[in-house]
Amino acid sequence: MTDELLRRRTVPVVTDGDRYDILIGPDLLSDAQAWQGLPRSTHAVVVTNTTVAPLYADAVQSALRTHFKTISLLELPDGEAYKTSTTLELIYNHLLQRQCDRRTVLFALGGGVVGDVAGFAAACYMRGIPFVQVPTTLLAQVDSSVGGKTAINHPLGKNMIGAFYQPRRVVCDLSTLQTLPDRELSAGLAEVIKYGPIADASFLDWIEEHLDALLRREVDALAHAVQRSCEIKALVVGQDEREAGLRAILNFGHTFGHAIEAGLGYGEWLHGEAVACGMLMAADLSAELGLMPAAFVGRMERLLRRARLPTTGPALGAERYLELMRVDKKAIGGEIQFVLIEALGKAVLRSAPDEIVAAVISRHTATSA
Amino acid sequence: MTDELLRRRTVPVVTDGDRYDILIGPDLLSDAQAWQGLPRSTHAVVVTNTTVAPLYADAVQSALRTHFKTISLLELPDGEAYKTSTTLELIYNHLLQRQCDRRTVLFALGGGVVGDVAGFAAACYMRGIPFVQVPTTLLAQVDSSVGGKTAINHPLGKNMIGAFYQPRRVVCDLSTLQTLPDRELSAGLAEVIKYGPIADASFLDWIEEHLDALLRREVDALAHAVQRSCEIKALVVGQDEREAGLRAILNFGHTFGHAIEAGLGYGEWLHGEAVACGMLMAADLSAELGLMPAAFVGRMERLLRRARLPTTGPALGAERYLELMRVDKKAIGGEIQFVLIEALGKAVLRSAPDEIVAAVISRHTATSA
Repeated sequence: MTDELLRRRTVPVVTDGDRYDILIGPDLLSDAQAWQGLPRSTHAVVVTNTTVAPLYADAVQSALRTHFKTISLLELPDGEAYKTSTTLELIYNHLLQRQCDRRTVLFALGGGVVGDVAGFAAACYMRGIPFVQVPTTLLAQVDSSVGGKTAINHPLGKNMIGAFYQPRRVVCDLSTLQTLPDRELSAGLAEVIKYGPIADASFLDWIEEHLDALLRREVDALAHAVQRSCEIKALVVGQDEREAGLRAILNFGHTFGHAIEAGLGYGEWLHGEAVACGMLMAADLSAELGLMPAAFVGRMERLLRRARLPTTGPALGAERYLELMRVDKKAIGGEIQFVLIEALGKAVLRSAPDEIVAAVISRHTATSA
Repeated sequence: MTDELLRRRTVPVVTDGDRYDILIGPDLLSDAQAWQGLPRSTHAVVVTNTTVAPLYADAVQSALRTHFKTISLLELPDGEAYKTSTTLELIYNHLLQRQCDRRTVLFALGGGVVGDVAGFAAACYMRGIPFVQVPTTLLAQVDSSVGGKTAINHPLGKNMIGAFYQPRRVVCDLSTLQTLPDRELSAGLAEVIKYGPIADASFLDWIEEHLDALLRREVDALAHAVQRSCEIKALVVGQDEREAGLRAILNFGHTFGHAIEAGLGYGEWLHGEAVACGMLMAADLSAELGLMPAAFVGRMERLLRRARLPTTGPALGAERYLELMRVDKKAIGGEIQFVLIEALGKAVLRSAPDEIVAAVISRHTATSA
């Protein structure tokens, strides 16, 4: 057995009466084996974006040719700004113009935006066609491609329109991470770091120990980070597919983070960057409410800085943050629900007094716009 | 016990790990009891249209006030032409502007269009909020409100974008049928008639016997027609929620019917009218393929005429019909799947040679445009 094969891992995901596999390893895209055993159909559609297409579309299409007679490619514009109903229409038009039927398999090749919007299109086209997540960013590999959440943004809120819809498979080719811009690698590390405080204290230790290797993009380190992240996410999602409770812990840092993204306009900060800053705020709020010692805040801040992530939010004003967080999907009757840490590896959902939240926000935002 | 209460019926619907009730009876809308036991929330949103609102919106809102603190009303334009992504956006905007959260209960008060588009909005808003179908047309009561199919139309195909999403309850107030235009009553009868040939020969006998009472809108006859239709639909849907097989039999007449609707432009013919004409074509095709005796075609034609339904399709040309049917959702690899009758009360899914289908179409369409 070669080193290559040893580096391949499979993480099973079990949801409501369904299961699928996450394949993790180098050089998977061009390997016909990675695509075998999917639902049979004559037609496959690869949805990707203008940045990813020149890098990987040919390799994927060649490998898919073993299994599908007709393969068509749709290149979307790149960026969070295009996670909209307009882009959704582009996908529907592509599918309908090619007379794609209910068996057509849709492949979402790209980062979180491609996965979310193409996944949502797959969920709605003819009320649901099979789709496969092929995440090419670290963020998508460790987070957005796993768990069946799909969505588009609305001018009034992020991910407001969407569906819970499970992929038939997730293929995480670690080789694609070699071409990722540094800023996006760091953004992905934010979501990797997240899994430590919410679910696995020893994984947090491991990340601190291997952060330099991850920043150097060493395949073995990446393989472990992606695998452990997917395992934790799969475990949580398997217990709560539709976010009735437990699943919300995956949104550690996201309530503050969404406010940053919405306040600045989507796409200004990367999602992972906003989450990083949001995690620091949520860590501080956990300390302020007496759930965690103050040292935890410092530990998070150091780790996020080492990962080259922002730890100071934009100067929107605390009031604007609060206003934006009140329309968050997790808010109930206008009351903001925060994911807080009550012990390393253990998260809890809590509300908090506005003045304490405002003080925490002020402490971690720039002083002028 | 009063006659009123005796006329009330409940049909349970069991789907994948879920169940809900269809309440059937006169004067339900204004009865607070009909709305009890729904998911608890401060906010309810009633989505309806400009035709139905003046008739019933006040009654529903008054009755809901017992259970919800805030009730908002959204009136959509009336008609199949508005079953579009634009209307969907209207609903999303309404929900977001009022900061509706995941617990908000959405009520779809109106015919099939309101139910389909509002149900789809409920399926996608924040990835799914509870909704209640309140069908006010016969067609919606016996067909579209039951079974969890929601959708919008696309310029390239009817119901192409949608979701399987179950309501928490269906409330069929038979009194609303008294205000229904004659043409819409007949359109609803088309779907009632459908259940005979596909599932229940004795129900077909009953319809023939009680058609005049149904046309006179006698409550007892309507109650039985709605109840039996819902029972059959619930039974079929319970066995096949996501249309893997059996459920397709509910589309008897619909493949031809969709071609009529798409060919003329949505809204020209009522859905039930197109289905009526489509059922006659499908009956004839069943006879042509030797599945049923020729007498069945005559029997269907007489019944549809008595119900004041069209039995001659528009002169689109057989080729155009075939072309439109090939993009139907049930087509597989471009091959059209027809729901045919092989015995009274028993339907089957079959393909058929183009030339036989074309001959059947020609026999039941007008000779010039």
